[in-house]
Amino acid sequence: MEFTLREIAARVGGDISGNPDLVITGVSEIQNSAPGTITFMGNMQYKKYISDTTASAIFVSNPDHLSGKNGIIVENPQLAIAKTLRLFHPEPEVNKTVRKGTNIHPDSKIGENVMIEPGATIENDAIIGRESWIGSNVYIGPDVIIGEHCRLYPNVTVYREIEIGNRVIIHSGTVIGCDGFGFVPGENIHEKIPQTGNVVIGDDVEIGSNTAIDRATIGSTKIGDMTKIDNLVHIGHNVNIGKGCLITAQVGIAGSVTIGSYCTFGGQAGVVPHVTIGDKSTFAAKSGITKSMAGGKTYAGYPAREIRDHHKREALIAEISRMRQKLDQLLNARKED
Amino acid sequence: MEFTLREIAARVGGDISGNPDLVITGVSEIQNSAPGTITFMGNMQYKKYISDTTASAIFVSNPDHLSGKNGIIVENPQLAIAKTLRLFHPEPEVNKTVRKGTNIHPDSKIGENVMIEPGATIENDAIIGRESWIGSNVYIGPDVIIGEHCRLYPNVTVYREIEIGNRVIIHSGTVIGCDGFGFVPGENIHEKIPQTGNVVIGDDVEIGSNTAIDRATIGSTKIGDMTKIDNLVHIGHNVNIGKGCLITAQVGIAGSVTIGSYCTFGGQAGVVPHVTIGDKSTFAAKSGITKSMAGGKTYAGYPAREIRDHHKREALIAEISRMRQKLDQLLNARKED
Amino acid sequence: MEFTLREIAARVGGDISGNPDLVITGVSEIQNSAPGTITFMGNMQYKKYISDTTASAIFVSNPDHLSGKNGIIVENPQLAIAKTLRLFHPEPEVNKTVRKGTNIHPDSKIGENVMIEPGATIENDAIIGRESWIGSNVYIGPDVIIGEHCRLYPNVTVYREIEIGNRVIIHSGTVIGCDGFGFVPGENIHEKIPQTGNVVIGDDVEIGSNTAIDRATIGSTKIGDMTKIDNLVHIGHNVNIGKGCLITAQVGIAGSVTIGSYCTFGGQAGVVPHVTIGDKSTFAAKSGITKSMAGGKTYAGYPAREIRDHHKREALIAEISRMRQKLDQLLNARKED
Repeated sequence: MEFTLREIAARVGGDISGNPDLVITGVSEIQNSAPGTITFMGNMQYKKYISDTTASAIFVSNPDHLSGKNGIIVENPQLAIAKTLRLFHPEPEVNKTVRKGTNIHPDSKIGENVMIEPGATIENDAIIGRESWIGSNVYIGPDVIIGEHCRLYPNVTVYREIEIGNRVIIHSGTVIGCDGFGFVPGENIHEKIPQTGNVVIGDDVEIGSNTAIDRATIGSTKIGDMTKIDNLVHIGHNVNIGKGCLITAQVGIAGSVTIGSYCTFGGQAGVVPHVTIGDKSTFAAKSGITKSMAGGKTYAGYPAREIRDHHKREALIAEISRMRQKLDQLLNARKED
Repeated sequence: MEFTLREIAARVGGDISGNPDLVITGVSEIQNSAPGTITFMGNMQYKKYISDTTASAIFVSNPDHLSGKNGIIVENPQLAIAKTLRLFHPEPEVNKTVRKGTNIHPDSKIGENVMIEPGATIENDAIIGRESWIGSNVYIGPDVIIGEHCRLYPNVTVYREIEIGNRVIIHSGTVIGCDGFGFVPGENIHEKIPQTGNVVIGDDVEIGSNTAIDRATIGSTKIGDMTKIDNLVHIGHNVNIGKGCLITAQVGIAGSVTIGSYCTFGGQAGVVPHVTIGDKSTFAAKSGITKSMAGGKTYAGYPAREIRDHHKREALIAEISRMRQKLDQLLNARKED
Repeated sequence: MEFTLREIAARVGGDISGNPDLVITGVSEIQNSAPGTITFMGNMQYKKYISDTTASAIFVSNPDHLSGKNGIIVENPQLAIAKTLRLFHPEPEVNKTVRKGTNIHPDSKIGENVMIEPGATIENDAIIGRESWIGSNVYIGPDVIIGEHCRLYPNVTVYREIEIGNRVIIHSGTVIGCDGFGFVPGENIHEKIPQTGNVVIGDDVEIGSNTAIDRATIGSTKIGDMTKIDNLVHIGHNVNIGKGCLITAQVGIAGSVTIGSYCTFGGQAGVVPHVTIGDKSTFAAKSGITKSMAGGKTYAGYPAREIRDHHKREALIAEISRMRQKLDQLLNARKED
């Protein structure tokens, strides 16, 4: 597949600098570029690579960075390259159809142009919206509602009564709606608390592989529109996550936590049960959030503190050996007095 | 579905305070209550919600807490609400049967009233006890024994020769009996140590989604009766866990660890190989257990210490800046002398 | 099954000490031994068990450790026992065949003696090498290449275009080639960056259960020959791992990380994006690697430091209370002056 700079600019936007008829055959990263490709300068730390890049053209936000090379000036080079990648790698066209070897309950409703792959099971009263894609060996429980243009990759499990919005992507092995970890503890028995609620997932959510999202005990566990969840994440029962959050791999959110919108969690962070986290909070990797946190700030450490306080505290430890030295001097001086 | 207070008290136990003919239509949480529902006061921290609750009745342990509202006095309000939830949300009645699209080896033994859903595979010489439920795309390997009244949700994998007790619940994506991480390390090769043992799971165990429990190298990895394991937990080969433990999400237990009964592990805690943990130990979230630990105590931190020592140590760090200040005063005073 | 010491030594190597006609009926661990079995002394810490062991024979590296018992002297007792375990527990012989209930695309290429189990799906243009074993409900996407003598356990998912070498073992629930967590963040939208690359896995790799390995955005995520990966590990897009690494359970490697050969990661360790780790690095459990690290060293802590520095730093904290005492003495003395 190949496109001229002019064709790329027409699809992606931006102003061409240099030869609009230049033929581009693919996309590359600036530090691993190849002739014929278009690359991008995502931020200033990659500026050093521009002079040596073998790419034939570059997306930049500042025309001065081109230093005479061919390129396209755009507001957001990373967004431009994302769109160009899709240009060179269009979604494979498939014959949307229900394939052989599926198990579809007659009392389910399958929308127009839905693709269902071999081994998938759709139970009674489930609804699959138009243009959605249900991969091999996916299980869709009774009374589940799945929106339009969704994509559930192979071996996903969706328990009964779950509601999933439009354009939701769920990667393989992920489980939506399993029972929360709820027991009435006793001396010789842990009595199971029935998990009678469900999970409601908004539009444009993407969920990685082997993640688990528990159904609510009562009511709904909620994932807001445009929230993106990575691989191997645990989300407990009755969690309520706002819009546009980014929850990276191996994060654990305990039960009944409320998270605002546009929050970011670094990998392996964890949140204790029953706390509330404000909008636009950011948590460093491996943070342990032990209490409710105001929004708009960046936190780190365990227990998580504002990152400035966390760094001060870490620096204090380095201080100790210097202090010990001074203290010993004082003690020696005192002895000599 | 609706029940009078009298009917609920008859099923759940307890003494009615107020109108026994009051009609209850559901269950709610005290901080999110709704008219017509019954709620509960699980512990004193929820007392503040009682005056404002819109629920029509409350389970309490102390009749004074009702302040004239309708309610049921029980010893354990949380247990009462768990039973009431089941009253309003009975297990769906299903026609227990082997459905179409299953792969059942003729040399397996399937008990009475077993339900096997589409895409499930039962291999040779496997035994499934009566009233058990095998979900879609579950794989049950050769020589596996599964007890009575078990429930394996879709996409669970049980490797060969595993033994599972009665009333065991295993959620989707969980893998029981995969090979332990055993290699003889060498300069240019890691020789695989054959994992020839199995896993033995007791009665009344519940295991969450996408958890992995390794088979033993020799002998058995053991999970005791009534132990409850959450999502995304790793349990290594030859681990031996006692009865009634609570192991929350994303905990990792390395190989050959022995854990007593009634232990609790907070989320994302980890245990190094070959250590022994006494009965009724409790570990805070994110603990890192690096050596054997006596039972009956609460631990936190990495390396895990008794929680009192952990808190002292954390407090010491906060002390440093005050100490530095004093030290500087002393140094300055000395200079002035 | 039983073998004489002579037969075992003939298969495994080593010099017999004692009665070569002694009949051995199995393998045991030295601290849980049983009459009739052969055990091994893997390292000096197990020496204390030798006098009390009930095993009939012992693999040792030093004949003096036998103290007159029957045994076999070998260079590496752990390797010897691994081979002996295989002797007593040979791989089950199976009729390699494509079983009923599979979904195999006519445009795939299935090698000689390949076993494909019920519910497995093989898509168009996939290639499965000879003697490989594809478990129940495994999904092999379009254009995937799987080498010879591989074993994919039930419920594994391999996305399109992935390349897997020879003698690779992948345990249940693991996902290879899902989309990396790549979004262009914006005020009100997270634009998905198409993940157009693939994953390339070398020879003799073993991957545990419920692990997730992301495909590259551009190019390939790479796992080198002989690298062993445990359960519940996350490997991000464009990660490049060398040969012979050992990556234990619940480790997370963020995107675009480069790891040399023969590195070891303890459980629950994590690596931030875009760093480079030298050959033969070792990281303690729960390490947080925040920058590039030179090879050949052992690191611990978060942020990860050389282990010596980490231990010093930890020891400093214990120092504080002693320092506070001294400081208070000085202050009191000053007041008295």
